[in-house]
Amino acid sequence: MKVLGATLTPVAFADPPLLNCMGVHEPSALRSVLEVECEDGVVGLGESYGDASFLEQARRVVERLAGADVFDLPGLRRLVTETLAGAVVTDAHGLIGGYSADKTVASVYSLIEVAFLDAQGHRLGVPVVDLLGGAARDRVDFSAYLFYKYETHQDGSGDRWGRALTPAEIVGQATTMIEEYGFGSIKLKGGVFAPEEECEAIEALAEAFPDLPLRLDPNAAWQVDTSVKVAERLDGVLEYLEDPTPGIEGMAAVARRAPMPLATNMCVVSFADVAPAFRAEAVGVVLSDHHFWGGLRDTLALGTTCGAFGVGLSMHSNSHLGISLAAMVHVAAATRQLTYACDTHWPWKTADVIEPGVLDFEGGAVAVPTGPGLGVSLDRDALARAHERYTTCGQTNRDDVSYMRRWEPGFTPNTARW
Amino acid sequence: MKVLGATLTPVAFADPPLLNCMGVHEPSALRSVLEVECEDGVVGLGESYGDASFLEQARRVVERLAGADVFDLPGLRRLVTETLAGAVVTDAHGLIGGYSADKTVASVYSLIEVAFLDAQGHRLGVPVVDLLGGAARDRVDFSAYLFYKYETHQDGSGDRWGRALTPAEIVGQATTMIEEYGFGSIKLKGGVFAPEEECEAIEALAEAFPDLPLRLDPNAAWQVDTSVKVAERLDGVLEYLEDPTPGIEGMAAVARRAPMPLATNMCVVSFADVAPAFRAEAVGVVLSDHHFWGGLRDTLALGTTCGAFGVGLSMHSNSHLGISLAAMVHVAAATRQLTYACDTHWPWKTADVIEPGVLDFEGGAVAVPTGPGLGVSLDRDALARAHERYTTCGQTNRDDVSYMRRWEPGFTPNTARW
Repeated sequence: MKVLGATLTPVAFADPPLLNCMGVHEPSALRSVLEVECEDGVVGLGESYGDASFLEQARRVVERLAGADVFDLPGLRRLVTETLAGAVVTDAHGLIGGYSADKTVASVYSLIEVAFLDAQGHRLGVPVVDLLGGAARDRVDFSAYLFYKYETHQDGSGDRWGRALTPAEIVGQATTMIEEYGFGSIKLKGGVFAPEEECEAIEALAEAFPDLPLRLDPNAAWQVDTSVKVAERLDGVLEYLEDPTPGIEGMAAVARRAPMPLATNMCVVSFADVAPAFRAEAVGVVLSDHHFWGGLRDTLALGTTCGAFGVGLSMHSNSHLGISLAAMVHVAAATRQLTYACDTHWPWKTADVIEPGVLDFEGGAVAVPTGPGLGVSLDRDALARAHERYTTCGQTNRDDVSYMRRWEPGFTPNTARW
Repeated sequence: MKVLGATLTPVAFADPPLLNCMGVHEPSALRSVLEVECEDGVVGLGESYGDASFLEQARRVVERLAGADVFDLPGLRRLVTETLAGAVVTDAHGLIGGYSADKTVASVYSLIEVAFLDAQGHRLGVPVVDLLGGAARDRVDFSAYLFYKYETHQDGSGDRWGRALTPAEIVGQATTMIEEYGFGSIKLKGGVFAPEEECEAIEALAEAFPDLPLRLDPNAAWQVDTSVKVAERLDGVLEYLEDPTPGIEGMAAVARRAPMPLATNMCVVSFADVAPAFRAEAVGVVLSDHHFWGGLRDTLALGTTCGAFGVGLSMHSNSHLGISLAAMVHVAAATRQLTYACDTHWPWKTADVIEPGVLDFEGGAVAVPTGPGLGVSLDRDALARAHERYTTCGQTNRDDVSYMRRWEPGFTPNTARW
């Protein structure tokens, strides 16, 4: 089935002032929405990053898609590789391990592969999960994703979540989120305060939710010895400790002394990282993310590689909308090696570009959509509103660091700070 | 799409007296043909081993297939795992590394998965390669597969290939096979004579075909030091040396000293073998085989794992018919990490169970079938003839060792003999 044309639309949606080791989320989160128009009126949808550097590279391929066959994914890979010719996306936020030329190809390929798979599913009348080998599970579990956060943005605009800067406020955030979504595990984004404070927040969560597995992710804010001290203190409390320290070597040093598995979406972010990290036994859990692992099929295959090495598998999330959540649910459902509930920023968003009703959370899980393709439909009015916000919000790149400097003028990222 | 019923038919076809380290091929090669009947008249085909022990385990699952959904491959895996409940196929021939409970599940699952994928393709009107992500290549290269062989079987029945026991006769066999099929690389099955003699045969092939990559596969007939000596002698002559010695540890010892990559279909035969072998850097090339790696999707994923570790990928072959060749071609075409021409016993067979015309060799390659599913059709008369041969041939298990004893009464397998 041939592609007739394709449109990539940058969009923005309100994002609360969530804190992490790089700073704080700006008022708008940026994404891009891809519509691939095919013969017979079939349209395939994709979603990915909305940063200018990514958009620039993605557009170079998107404008060459006409004439491609949506079933020819190797041909798509060649088109992306040839078109980008070694170009590298500039990674402004630094939370997913930086970009290489290969990771740039993988990211742009992924955006389009998802749309091609959606189109394939519509053409064949089957859900994407069946194109990936069928559902190993009917529902995909997600984890509550807690953030330290300011009460308001710099312009004074607040949100329904309020302030979360203390252990008690973090427990309050968790309570609300779990009441509404039913999550069965909890992740706290750390790397914001001194490790002792973040340990106190985790311990408060453990006391408030004694039956729920917990995770802490400081985005490599700690040095090796600090990481080991935290790991020892939280022994029996955390199901895994995520990216305590930078790099494969550092992670391996922590892993040799930590009682729980270490997880990563920072030091193993492409297939080139797998061999050195697995040989060094640096990580016990990989957090996959189809947006930069090269699409749904390669994310599925990553599961096989992890399974072969006895490495667990979870899923990473950036701020995202419904097209991405649908893709995450389909690939997670098809991946039999998935061993943990996935991450999602879903509760933090206030708008979407898809028709509601398909991706509802129940008991912390999302049922795999049963309609053809991804099973979601674009809400064109909502897309127009989100694009309008993009054109007027004044943001073109995610830059948590600069925004943080409006609170703390001398701020630099907390990477390996403690 | 629901399965209405399934039939597993054991078949036999004439096989020449081909020599290997375990002995000599018996007069009949045994296979099994699976027909999965689905709603709307759709039929899916599969092919695998025909040994009694495999048939016994496969039948236990085949008789429970009615009601299964051909798109629910995870459900199929559960059905196979639960039904077999730890049963282990008895491996009579010993050439693919022995069987475990997991490998038994993988083998029976594969037989049925191929038939389910064929049925999916017929239902959706797309070739299997498209269900696997599309064709990374339109044609799949195969290697000439040379064997030392006797002129006739014990009953005096000969074949068109004649005797091949000397370097000159091996070169003659290669000449005929390459003239007919156009192969662009050559593999010699070794482990039959002393290593020096087999080196002479390889050197004669190198002289006769200076432009063609060569391989030698003694099926672990050698000890470590012998393997290294052969590797040094054949430096610059072999593209890879296949399974010179038994076990991951032994292969690693050879690999550290051999100038060319070592390949295997004996010490890495399941995902459980991958981590120890790759960590030990025991192999440079894995010979995949969907029949025991757990079907086409897991074979595809094995490619990703090999690619991530910089390990090459080729494909192993047992004696097989056209349904298996079609499956091999589809998965090889979809596997972008495939780095070598695949093995096939195809030139040695004299009968088939499929309608001719789809899988013709040209320039040593087979074009990926473009029809729905596997793209091959059962010839019911030929199937009946092959089943009749099975019922009358007196063989129920492959047993190259016992048959060899009719030539050499005291014969024992050559494993690690030299």
